[in-house]
Amino acid sequence: MFRQVIAFRWMEGASPEAKEAYRGALEGLRVIPELVAMTWGDDAGHFEGNFDFVAVMDFESFAAARRYVGHPLHQAYVEDHASQVVGERVVVQHDWAGPAS
Amino acid sequence: MFRQVIAFRWMEGASPEAKEAYRGALEGLRVIPELVAMTWGDDAGHFEGNFDFVAVMDFESFAAARRYVGHPLHQAYVEDHASQVVGERVVVQHDWAGPAS
Repeated sequence: MFRQVIAFRWMEGASPEAKEAYRGALEGLRVIPELVAMTWGDDAGHFEGNFDFVAVMDFESFAAARRYVGHPLHQAYVEDHASQVVGERVVVQHDWAGPAS
Repeated sequence: MFRQVIAFRWMEGASPEAKEAYRGALEGLRVIPELVAMTWGDDAGHFEGNFDFVAVMDFESFAAARRYVGHPLHQAYVEDHASQVVGERVVVQHDWAGPAS
């Protein structure tokens, strides 16, 4: 499996409505077949300095992750939502064995 | 479940040996009962600008995560390894439903 972790801070001035629309658009990406699993969440606010949001996404392979990026739904997600609310952003991608079965 | 995601860059000058010792110490934390699940990995290097390493850790609750932090093994991990090799660091913590069962 190929895991992609994206942590970010909201863009300054992003409205609660725009953030909620972003979360909805992110959830909508689950229909893309290459996206095998996804968790995401807003930081719980226990510690100052934490970033605001994280998404953990699993694909079968890097090639599958690239196909996901090219999917029209993902393109619309970037143009209509991510580009409007995602500020400072950190990404790490790595292969892993997948969930214990 | 309470998820903690930590992404970081290696500290400048951290040796391959120190990084490998860090990975071993991180793996050793699995014996702490509060750590329900953990994945980690070095960035695959597909994209410039990605951070170097990420760990995704699950606990039953924030309280359990705090107990984990206080465990002697975790304390030693911080003092002997993390403090030696972890540079710029981003954390996000959030509640989630847990793995589909």
